[in-house]
Amino acid sequence: MDAALLIGLVSIVTAGLTIAIGTIGPALAEGRAVAQALAAIAQQPDEAATLSRSLFVGLAMIESTAIYCFVVSMILIFANPFWNHFVAAAGH
Amino acid sequence: MDAALLIGLVSIVTAGLTIAIGTIGPALAEGRAVAQALAAIAQQPDEAATLSRSLFVGLAMIESTAIYCFVVSMILIFANPFWNHFVAAAGH
Amino acid sequence: MDAALLIGLVSIVTAGLTIAIGTIGPALAEGRAVAQALAAIAQQPDEAATLSRSLFVGLAMIESTAIYCFVVSMILIFANPFWNHFVAAAGH
Amino acid sequence: MDAALLIGLVSIVTAGLTIAIGTIGPALAEGRAVAQALAAIAQQPDEAATLSRSLFVGLAMIESTAIYCFVVSMILIFANPFWNHFVAAAGH
Amino acid sequence: MDAALLIGLVSIVTAGLTIAIGTIGPALAEGRAVAQALAAIAQQPDEAATLSRSLFVGLAMIESTAIYCFVVSMILIFANPFWNHFVAAAGH
Amino acid sequence: MDAALLIGLVSIVTAGLTIAIGTIGPALAEGRAVAQALAAIAQQPDEAATLSRSLFVGLAMIESTAIYCFVVSMILIFANPFWNHFVAAAGH
Amino acid sequence: MDAALLIGLVSIVTAGLTIAIGTIGPALAEGRAVAQALAAIAQQPDEAATLSRSLFVGLAMIESTAIYCFVVSMILIFANPFWNHFVAAAGH
Amino acid sequence: MDAALLIGLVSIVTAGLTIAIGTIGPALAEGRAVAQALAAIAQQPDEAATLSRSLFVGLAMIESTAIYCFVVSMILIFANPFWNHFVAAAGH
Amino acid sequence: MDAALLIGLVSIVTAGLTIAIGTIGPALAEGRAVAQALAAIAQQPDEAATLSRSLFVGLAMIESTAIYCFVVSMILIFANPFWNHFVAAAGH
Amino acid sequence: MDAALLIGLVSIVTAGLTIAIGTIGPALAEGRAVAQALAAIAQQPDEAATLSRSLFVGLAMIESTAIYCFVVSMILIFANPFWNHFVAAAGH
Amino acid sequence: MDAALLIGLVSIVTAGLTIAIGTIGPALAEGRAVAQALAAIAQQPDEAATLSRSLFVGLAMIESTAIYCFVVSMILIFANPFWNHFVAAAGH
Amino acid sequence: MDAALLIGLVSIVTAGLTIAIGTIGPALAEGRAVAQALAAIAQQPDEAATLSRSLFVGLAMIESTAIYCFVVSMILIFANPFWNHFVAAAGH
Amino acid sequence: MDAALLIGLVSIVTAGLTIAIGTIGPALAEGRAVAQALAAIAQQPDEAATLSRSLFVGLAMIESTAIYCFVVSMILIFANPFWNHFVAAAGH
Amino acid sequence: MDAALLIGLVSIVTAGLTIAIGTIGPALAEGRAVAQALAAIAQQPDEAATLSRSLFVGLAMIESTAIYCFVVSMILIFANPFWNHFVAAAGH
Repeated sequence: MDAALLIGLVSIVTAGLTIAIGTIGPALAEGRAVAQALAAIAQQPDEAATLSRSLFVGLAMIESTAIYCFVVSMILIFANPFWNHFVAAAGH
Repeated sequence: MDAALLIGLVSIVTAGLTIAIGTIGPALAEGRAVAQALAAIAQQPDEAATLSRSLFVGLAMIESTAIYCFVVSMILIFANPFWNHFVAAAGH
Repeated sequence: MDAALLIGLVSIVTAGLTIAIGTIGPALAEGRAVAQALAAIAQQPDEAATLSRSLFVGLAMIESTAIYCFVVSMILIFANPFWNHFVAAAGH
Repeated sequence: MDAALLIGLVSIVTAGLTIAIGTIGPALAEGRAVAQALAAIAQQPDEAATLSRSLFVGLAMIESTAIYCFVVSMILIFANPFWNHFVAAAGH
Repeated sequence: MDAALLIGLVSIVTAGLTIAIGTIGPALAEGRAVAQALAAIAQQPDEAATLSRSLFVGLAMIESTAIYCFVVSMILIFANPFWNHFVAAAGH
Repeated sequence: MDAALLIGLVSIVTAGLTIAIGTIGPALAEGRAVAQALAAIAQQPDEAATLSRSLFVGLAMIESTAIYCFVVSMILIFANPFWNHFVAAAGH
Repeated sequence: MDAALLIGLVSIVTAGLTIAIGTIGPALAEGRAVAQALAAIAQQPDEAATLSRSLFVGLAMIESTAIYCFVVSMILIFANPFWNHFVAAAGH
Repeated sequence: MDAALLIGLVSIVTAGLTIAIGTIGPALAEGRAVAQALAAIAQQPDEAATLSRSLFVGLAMIESTAIYCFVVSMILIFANPFWNHFVAAAGH
Repeated sequence: MDAALLIGLVSIVTAGLTIAIGTIGPALAEGRAVAQALAAIAQQPDEAATLSRSLFVGLAMIESTAIYCFVVSMILIFANPFWNHFVAAAGH
Repeated sequence: MDAALLIGLVSIVTAGLTIAIGTIGPALAEGRAVAQALAAIAQQPDEAATLSRSLFVGLAMIESTAIYCFVVSMILIFANPFWNHFVAAAGH
Repeated sequence: MDAALLIGLVSIVTAGLTIAIGTIGPALAEGRAVAQALAAIAQQPDEAATLSRSLFVGLAMIESTAIYCFVVSMILIFANPFWNHFVAAAGH
Repeated sequence: MDAALLIGLVSIVTAGLTIAIGTIGPALAEGRAVAQALAAIAQQPDEAATLSRSLFVGLAMIESTAIYCFVVSMILIFANPFWNHFVAAAGH
Repeated sequence: MDAALLIGLVSIVTAGLTIAIGTIGPALAEGRAVAQALAAIAQQPDEAATLSRSLFVGLAMIESTAIYCFVVSMILIFANPFWNHFVAAAGH
Repeated sequence: MDAALLIGLVSIVTAGLTIAIGTIGPALAEGRAVAQALAAIAQQPDEAATLSRSLFVGLAMIESTAIYCFVVSMILIFANPFWNHFVAAAGH
């Protein structure tokens, strides 16, 4: 098997697993934060605005870790420096 | 085995596992958020509108992580750049 | 083994595992949501309509992640582009 | 080993594991929902009709994920397109 | 090894594992439902009839997932289409 | 190794594992149900008869899943159709 | 290696694992039931006779699952039909 | 390697693992029962005799599962029928 | 490798793992029993003698499962019948 | 396979797994912190400013561990000293 | 590789793993007992002497299981009968 | 493969896994500490300064364990003594 | 590979894993004991001296299990009898 | 591969895994202790000094287990006696 093929195979598997494993943590964390936000709003309806603002900041922080994984996954599929190197080297 | 075959095999497995593993977290998180929303509505029926709005925003954030996985899975099946490269290269 | 055979074998395994693993999360999440809905209705019978509506929206969101898996599984069995490619190429 | 044999072997294993793994989640979820329904009826006997209706809708949703697995399992045993293809191709 | 032998070996293992793994979920779920039913009857003895009826419907739903596994297991042992095919083909 | 030997080896392992794994769930579930029954009787001694009856029905349902496994295990040891086929075929 | 040897090796391993794995569930379940029985007797000393009777019935049901495993384990060591078959066939 | 050696190796490993794995469940279960007994005696010192008697019956039932494992382990080391068979057959 | 060497290697590994795995359960169980005993004494200082006696009986029962493992481990190192057999047979 | 290829393959896999595994912990931790912050604000709305400040400091500390992983992942893809060494050495 | 080398390798690995795995249970159990002792002393300072005495007896019982592992580990390193046998036999 | 290549491959994998696995514990621990700090501030707003100081000391201690991992990871990538040894030895 | 090399390799791996795995239990146990000590001091500040003394005795007991692992790890690196034997034997 | 290379490879992997695995326990334990300290200070602000002192002693004990791992990890990278032996022996 030539180099580009191997790089391609490994990139596909890694891209998929990265986003699949990498979303478990953020999803569960967001679920917890949202659930607690709803409980807090039900307990203090007058603070709904403050609570929503804190929730969105928190969700953005948590989502950022999912986005790290998505970025790495997209880099591996569409902007993979190792793939570019070997495709260029082999003149495919 | 030629290159396109290997890319195809790996893409099938990765696409399936990505969406299978990637939906565990979001599903559980949505279940938690929905359950808490129902508890909150039962506790504060007057805030049902506010709570529903917060719930839908939260569900959208959580669903987004599942959609990242679905997007990667669909890219691997229907818009796989590595597959396109090798099919074109081999003139299949 | 020829290419179509390998694609077929891998598609069968992946299709089965995708739907098997992919239903664990949604099923548990729906169970949690339904259980909480019943508790909420018992606590606030007057809000049964609102609670049911929220429950159905939530179940639809959760079910969607199971359906992503079912869609990928069906695509792999009945509309597999890699299978079509190799069957056509080999003139089977 | 010829193609049909391999397809058959893999189909048997996948069919069994799909339904075995795929029933864990729904069974646990239904158990949770039923348990909560009983607690809710004991708490609000007057709402038994409403609670039962909600329970049956919820059980149907959860059962649907088990049925996805059963459908895939039956397709693999009795309506397997890959099996049909290779049996027809080999003229067995 | 000939085809029928392989089909037989795989069918035995799969049949056993399918029913072994597939009963874990339903058994635990039924245990939960029965335990909750007893607690509910102790709390509301006057509703014992309603609770028992709900319990039996729920147990039937849960048992159905165990029966799916048992059906697949029995099909693999006594009505296996792949086994029949290869035994007929080989004229054993 | 001849066919009957392989079938025998696999049947032994599968029979043992099937009953070993298959009793974990039912045992735990029965333990839960019995424990709750005792708690319920202590709470409502006057309903001991009703509670015992519900308990026995529930235990029977749970035990049924263990019996499925025991049946499959016994079939594999003493009434194995694949074993009979190959022993008859080979004229041992 | 001859057939009887292989059957013997596999029977030893399976017999050991079957009883080892198969006692985990029943032991934990009995521990739970006994613990709850003690709590119940402490709560309702006047019902000690009823509670003990229910406990013993429950323990018998749970023990039965451990005994299934012990039976299979003993059958594999002392009354193994496959062992008998091959020892008789080989005229050892 | 001759037959007796293999039987010996497998018997050693199986005997060790059987008792090692097989004591986890009973030990934990006894710990639970003893702990609850102490709590019950502290709550109802006047019933100490009844509670101790129930505890000892329960511990005996739980210990029986550990003894099953110890019996199998000792049989494999000191009264192994397969070992006796091959040592006798080979005239060692 | 000769027979005595293999028996020696396997005995070392099994002896170590047996005692290592076999002490997890008893240690945790004793920790639980001791912890509960302390809580019970703090709650009922007047019953300290009764509680200590029950605790020691319970600890002895639990320790017995650890001692089963220690006995098997020591037998494998210092009184291994298989080792004795092969050392005697080979006249080492 | 030449050295640069191997370095490339390993770098892709490691980069993906590092960020995928490395975000699980931080995401869950942030979810917990955000959830507790919302509960605290609902309990003490007057301290919302102090609580938000403490939350942001904490989130920054937690996010730092995710960023360690992201930094290592990016170094492996875009500034890998081993890759640079071998590409320079081989004059690719 | 000669016999003494193999015995040495296996003894090193087993000695390390035995003590590493074997301290998990006792450490956790002691932590639990100590924690409960502190809670009990805080609740009943007048019984500190009785509680300490019970604690030390309990810790000694738990520590004994860790010491079993340490003894086996030391025997394997410094008083290994198998090692002595082969070193003597080979006249190293 | 020459020595430097192997050292490079292993260093990449180890560096990634070290930081990935090594941040799980600290991240979860920091999340727990921050969450409790927020709860404590909400409970005792007057002690916010004392609590923040204790929190920061604690976070620093916890972060130190993550930094150990990061240090080892960076040493392996940028100051690896084994890599330097072999690159110098081979005169690459 | 010669004997000393193999002993060295295995000693490195075992030393590292022994201390890595062996500190998980003690660390968690100490964390639990310290946490409970702080809660107890907060509940009974007048007993701080008694509680601290009990805590330190308990921590010493728990730390002893970690020290067993550290001792084995150091013996394997710096006072390994097997290493000394083979280095002396080979006259390295 | 020569001896020094193998020692180097194994040392890298072991050093990384030792510190990665070895920080999980201490980090979680410190998180628990810090969290409880904050709760205790919020409950008894007057005892903040005593609580902080106890916390720091406890954290030092826990950190010591992480430092054991760090020490072993550093020894393996920078003061490895096996590495020194083979580098000296081979005259690299």
